[in-house]
Amino acid sequence: MRLRYAGTAYHGWQRQKNDLTVQGLVEDALNAILKCKTNVVGCGRTDAGVHAMKYCANFRTEATIPADKLHLAMNARLPDDIAVCDAVEVEDSFHSVFSCEKKEYTYFITNSNIRDPFLENRTWFFPAQLDLSVMREAAAAFCGTHDFSAVRSVGTNVKTTVRTVHYFDVERDGTQLQMRVCANGFLYNMARAMVGTLVFASLGKIKPEEIASVLEKGERSLAGPTAPACGLYMTGVWYGGKAGEMMLK
Amino acid sequence: MRLRYAGTAYHGWQRQKNDLTVQGLVEDALNAILKCKTNVVGCGRTDAGVHAMKYCANFRTEATIPADKLHLAMNARLPDDIAVCDAVEVEDSFHSVFSCEKKEYTYFITNSNIRDPFLENRTWFFPAQLDLSVMREAAAAFCGTHDFSAVRSVGTNVKTTVRTVHYFDVERDGTQLQMRVCANGFLYNMARAMVGTLVFASLGKIKPEEIASVLEKGERSLAGPTAPACGLYMTGVWYGGKAGEMMLK
Repeated sequence: MRLRYAGTAYHGWQRQKNDLTVQGLVEDALNAILKCKTNVVGCGRTDAGVHAMKYCANFRTEATIPADKLHLAMNARLPDDIAVCDAVEVEDSFHSVFSCEKKEYTYFITNSNIRDPFLENRTWFFPAQLDLSVMREAAAAFCGTHDFSAVRSVGTNVKTTVRTVHYFDVERDGTQLQMRVCANGFLYNMARAMVGTLVFASLGKIKPEEIASVLEKGERSLAGPTAPACGLYMTGVWYGGKAGEMMLK
Repeated sequence: MRLRYAGTAYHGWQRQKNDLTVQGLVEDALNAILKCKTNVVGCGRTDAGVHAMKYCANFRTEATIPADKLHLAMNARLPDDIAVCDAVEVEDSFHSVFSCEKKEYTYFITNSNIRDPFLENRTWFFPAQLDLSVMREAAAAFCGTHDFSAVRSVGTNVKTTVRTVHYFDVERDGTQLQMRVCANGFLYNMARAMVGTLVFASLGKIKPEEIASVLEKGERSLAGPTAPACGLYMTGVWYGGKAGEMMLK
């Protein structure tokens, strides 16, 4: 299934006992349709308040509902801030997390001294003028293969903290700043901590040329703060050895 | 003052005793800043759930706060879904309603069989395919000077129900339909009833060539339904005999 959701109302993707989550609602809808308890595997644990323009989740079922009708049945049962865009049958070996080759997150900042009421909970409202060229220099320092411990929040166990950032582009369109970062994987809070470091660099609190040594030292306190969840969107996920957004074989 | 607001959380512009309104919050903020009870005159009574990308409101005061600093003080006291963009001193004779020459409303429809979670409460989600050319024909029928009683909800007293619609453009950008209508004044629910009639026309429930006689008969039941509030935005207001958005002399 390919999904889109606005994360404002949810405690992230992952099902939790007492909080409303996207996975919880998606599974509830699916269980009601398939009349069978089904586990839905999402491509990542987006945090509370984080959004997804492109998100992939898979499940196994012996039910015979046609894949190309599933999104209609699902959307009839889901709230308006979650949508299933489409669904396709995939090979047995497919797994939303393990088959994933790379992901893209995009972070939006409204860089203006007047907030935009229509972007409440959708971007990080940041009034102080940000310097695109410094942020680009800082973003370039994250590209490549590094140990990303310095921009990781603890809380999850991972085998390795080494990741490869394929690109980290920073663009400005009027008052909107857009940071698009693609990697073979993201550690917990890594995207938001990198964005926070770009903003820190723009404010002169860290020099872009210092980022390499910050990564080397691996100390979280040396990098910038974690940017707010509301500006972050999952915007791409690639599968199956072929580049292409949400390519499902 | 020039304002922008997302109307979802509010019972419209006009102050009400027991409901949260934009005027109520704007006046409360202003009173706190000026330390004096001040009446704010808005350029129109937007309904509950209706938005404003451009909105004008004026007030009289003897306070000496500089106009070009007012928006900062106001925004510090207003919630994130209301913003004061700027403020200027105007001549004594200025009145947001009476000095207004024309206004523009824009209505957005998401015309797709899959809703967009990021446009919840921001557009009318309408899955059935809409026909742009029929809607344009219907829109053209409203242009010019007519008695608009047929697309008016009762509830307010007005001297005349004759208005002049200057233009009514319908455009499509992907799944987004945009209807932009400008008139010297709008009757209660007139913009939404006209949009509902365009949609009715597209569905074959009324012929564009019948609209002239519907206007002539002036019976509300002959026109289309009132489109939902969430798709409507005030997008322009012109003053002072000179064309131009929010031209304040």
